[in-house]
Amino acid sequence: MIDKLIDKIKETENPTVVGLDPRLSYVPDFIKNECLEKYGKTPKAVAESFYMFNKEIIDKTFDLVPAVKPQVAMYEMLGPEGFDSYIRTIEYAKSKGLIVIGDVKRGDIASTAEAYSDGHIGRINIEGNEFEIYHEDFITLNPYLGWDSIEPYMENCRNYDKGMFVLVKTSNPNSGQLQDLDVGGKTLYQKVGELTSEWGKELVGKYGYSSVGAVVGATHREQAEKLRKLMPDTFFLVPGYGAQGGKAEDLAVCFDKDGLGAIVNSSRGIIAAHQKEQYKNKYSEKDFALAARDAVNDMKADLRRCI
Amino acid sequence: MIDKLIDKIKETENPTVVGLDPRLSYVPDFIKNECLEKYGKTPKAVAESFYMFNKEIIDKTFDLVPAVKPQVAMYEMLGPEGFDSYIRTIEYAKSKGLIVIGDVKRGDIASTAEAYSDGHIGRINIEGNEFEIYHEDFITLNPYLGWDSIEPYMENCRNYDKGMFVLVKTSNPNSGQLQDLDVGGKTLYQKVGELTSEWGKELVGKYGYSSVGAVVGATHREQAEKLRKLMPDTFFLVPGYGAQGGKAEDLAVCFDKDGLGAIVNSSRGIIAAHQKEQYKNKYSEKDFALAARDAVNDMKADLRRCI
Repeated sequence: MIDKLIDKIKETENPTVVGLDPRLSYVPDFIKNECLEKYGKTPKAVAESFYMFNKEIIDKTFDLVPAVKPQVAMYEMLGPEGFDSYIRTIEYAKSKGLIVIGDVKRGDIASTAEAYSDGHIGRINIEGNEFEIYHEDFITLNPYLGWDSIEPYMENCRNYDKGMFVLVKTSNPNSGQLQDLDVGGKTLYQKVGELTSEWGKELVGKYGYSSVGAVVGATHREQAEKLRKLMPDTFFLVPGYGAQGGKAEDLAVCFDKDGLGAIVNSSRGIIAAHQKEQYKNKYSEKDFALAARDAVNDMKADLRRCI
Repeated sequence: MIDKLIDKIKETENPTVVGLDPRLSYVPDFIKNECLEKYGKTPKAVAESFYMFNKEIIDKTFDLVPAVKPQVAMYEMLGPEGFDSYIRTIEYAKSKGLIVIGDVKRGDIASTAEAYSDGHIGRINIEGNEFEIYHEDFITLNPYLGWDSIEPYMENCRNYDKGMFVLVKTSNPNSGQLQDLDVGGKTLYQKVGELTSEWGKELVGKYGYSSVGAVVGATHREQAEKLRKLMPDTFFLVPGYGAQGGKAEDLAVCFDKDGLGAIVNSSRGIIAAHQKEQYKNKYSEKDFALAARDAVNDMKADLRRCI
């Protein structure tokens, strides 16, 4: 799957991922009101408004970016109808040729990880009938439980050409509380980086990168620089650009000399662009997703300036 | 919420949690066939069979145990209908007076953690309408991202009398790969234990235990012993008993001198008891949950022998 992602990055000349983390406060009134009228003030109304919102964003950006990254929590908080919206968002994004990274950050013991793995990137078999439930192309995973919590995803990666991004160094302010601890001449995140790189060896593709990637926050330049050297075969998913404070100059170190090696996520900065000073008077409410398109183009230019 | 859990443990004189981690292979034919006939070979059929299965198990054990712990992955793998089954299972367990520990192991940056927190243990507000979506009493959390990934759950714990169990030392074979690393005179799991204990200080209840608990695997006796000393105010959720190899003798160290301080989970050992040699010829298929009841009583006796 990493090869397909890199092909799409080359095709769009853009390592930007659109983070589909909708909130009701981002959804324009014309969508929100339609859903509230239809379904009342219910989780179903919000879930439906998220789908309609995402669909517009996808329609206006799919030709510019290689991938989208829905954050499952935004849907999960709404219950079953939220998951329905999550799945339909993924299906729609895939129908437009986008790679989908499910930001699920799951991590559990092997027998449980199998269930997550089969549901998200594999198949579930019900008395001989096979179902793909979430069908993300990649998912994010938490490494705290060690290798046997990661292994159940490997088989589905092999069988169905899927991938994963393991949390190595996250973008949040307290990420260092555990991740920066010294574990004997190196930090915990470096150790996780080494393990991730090792786990990924068998899934290295034609461009020299593995389908086992790493999450490396844009908010930690020095750490990212160290990790890039430590993990030459590992593709980085870089969150934290924009709203979280990560700058193109800082995350440039995540890329290799060919301008590959990383994909940079922006959520709020793109999907809520129609609410930002810079874009908000340019388009009518119905055309809110054109602001997202502008934001993608601006982000692409900003990244290309530095990598 | 920890006080309520301890009250229930005292009332039932039993620190056993029934792990509701159903699999289709555990579900007796009479339930499975009814669901397959009604809904075909579909995720909905499996989800419905899980609910019916859980309901029987709950009916036959609710008077013996303080709590149940559904593992969300088993439901999540089925998609939206799985979550519907998860939620109905929680509602049913609560209607029988059980405490519900949602084994979700979520962990994400603050803005995302808020969404998980509001969905699982808080409320979501839709234009002034408030909804409880999953309404677990406790959930499990992954600490890899540090304090700001835990903090968003604290407010809901305070406001709605809820609790959490932070993964400190897990029960799986490779748990030591990161958790046992030396981080300067102590292991990573000890460090996480110290942090968990610190995070929990403001939520200590009338029995001296905090609503911020710790997951400490039954499969690591020495580590559990160290943690018990290190974290005198922290209640332990102990997975790994039975099918994973944890023994009553080993996990006895998780308890305090009053026989409190921990709750021990068994999933397969209880809910699939009707398939075990020991119980399988005792009851008719329709009475499969009486085998679970026997297994609970046997586990209670086994634990009480040692604590």
